[in-house]
Amino acid sequence: MTLFMIGLGLGDARDITLKGLDAIRTCDYVFLENYTSIYGSSKEEMEIFFEKEIVEIGRNIVESDDAQILEHAKNENVAFLVIGDVFGATTHTDLFLRAKKQGIEVVVVNNASIINAVSVTGLELYRFGRVASIVFDDDDWLPETPYDIILENKKNGLHTLCLLDIKTAEPSKENLRKGINKPEPARFLSLNKGLEILKKIEQKRDEKIISDDKLVIGVARLGSEHQIIKAGTLKEIMKFDFGKPLHSIIIPGNLHDIEKEMLELWK
Amino acid sequence: MTLFMIGLGLGDARDITLKGLDAIRTCDYVFLENYTSIYGSSKEEMEIFFEKEIVEIGRNIVESDDAQILEHAKNENVAFLVIGDVFGATTHTDLFLRAKKQGIEVVVVNNASIINAVSVTGLELYRFGRVASIVFDDDDWLPETPYDIILENKKNGLHTLCLLDIKTAEPSKENLRKGINKPEPARFLSLNKGLEILKKIEQKRDEKIISDDKLVIGVARLGSEHQIIKAGTLKEIMKFDFGKPLHSIIIPGNLHDIEKEMLELWK
Repeated sequence: MTLFMIGLGLGDARDITLKGLDAIRTCDYVFLENYTSIYGSSKEEMEIFFEKEIVEIGRNIVESDDAQILEHAKNENVAFLVIGDVFGATTHTDLFLRAKKQGIEVVVVNNASIINAVSVTGLELYRFGRVASIVFDDDDWLPETPYDIILENKKNGLHTLCLLDIKTAEPSKENLRKGINKPEPARFLSLNKGLEILKKIEQKRDEKIISDDKLVIGVARLGSEHQIIKAGTLKEIMKFDFGKPLHSIIIPGNLHDIEKEMLELWK
Repeated sequence: MTLFMIGLGLGDARDITLKGLDAIRTCDYVFLENYTSIYGSSKEEMEIFFEKEIVEIGRNIVESDDAQILEHAKNENVAFLVIGDVFGATTHTDLFLRAKKQGIEVVVVNNASIINAVSVTGLELYRFGRVASIVFDDDDWLPETPYDIILENKKNGLHTLCLLDIKTAEPSKENLRKGINKPEPARFLSLNKGLEILKKIEQKRDEKIISDDKLVIGVARLGSEHQIIKAGTLKEIMKFDFGKPLHSIIIPGNLHDIEKEMLELWK
């Protein structure tokens, strides 16, 4: 039958599209990918709203174990729900590919992603360069890729959206070493911590793109009813309490007049 | 009252989110922006589906004449519908800004945009550089900006999404000179014509990034039920009939293994 890969949008269950909801209602199995984002509705709330039982699945199942998803999809309609849009994470492309190879029909139902919703800040989508990801600096491992991307974008006058690391339901390295596969509680990199990491890399690289007096835009829960957008100096933004995750950082490039005017709203 | 700025998504009226539909149903006036994209449902079909009368408005009204939208929004709920997501076009940021300045509450309801839906091709969103726009080469005026962007992205190993020009309901230059404001029929730049324009610029610039044997991905009506994705050499893609608009072009950068595998599906 059909594998429906459905984007849930950024806020809560009411952000689903009618096409997505209709598809879910035809499905015998509904899976929710729960490791690349967080959502304003719980599994239980979605079950009531969508009128379907939902099975949450982690990375290990999506990446390695087809049985739950693809075996069912051979004979029945299956929904695979993803917060935001469908193909934010590589593993979902992989699932799509494996389904196609097994001759399963796949229908993608798109929805909003932070990649486009970030334009609500007033910064033009056409003036964003490549997206950066800032990861937890555990074990003092400090990848400089996000800094390189910001630098490259800045040179071209472009804005950079920095997504912040999520660790959901993954076992700790210590437990893994011991062979214990017990998932740790979810962790979300905060705006404050993300900026701290960028400052640490700046100390090393000294390209003068990150400093206390530079303009930064902080966003939290973007695309939901509880979104916060705040523009200010890095120092101001680091002091601001953005509340619950998800947070993201935007490092602006050159600004047009209308972009400047829009940012004034968030100061 | 409230100005609801609502993304309609990429396909047809059933791509609206429940949040968007609920908002429309509370509105006294519903405006549809009709000059930056096209949609799988007509105004009349949307009126039946949304159970509301819809007024189509052109660029001149959104950009200059607040009366229709903002005057109503002071005392009543007004919906402003945009195909795709809300802030693809600068003029919508401008409307948002003017509403805010007049003390009108603005609620944005996001939806999918080609900017994120392009990931259905299998190309990773994280590996796209800045978006390019290819415009009609009327009057032999040939802006090289899209070529510059592709070149810059290629140097960084990144993919480029090239959006193709839309001319809807604009008067011809000749008529404008005569003072006649009669709108011409809508025109949409086709994939074929867009690639031809890139080849023309290549002839001039000779950076060897565009040629008949280079890999190109063509997409039509992306995010709708009638989408086409086709990967092949530029020569192959130029021969292929993609049908009705909208079309877009993707010029890939370096490809990861899973991206290569995905592109095989569209060959």
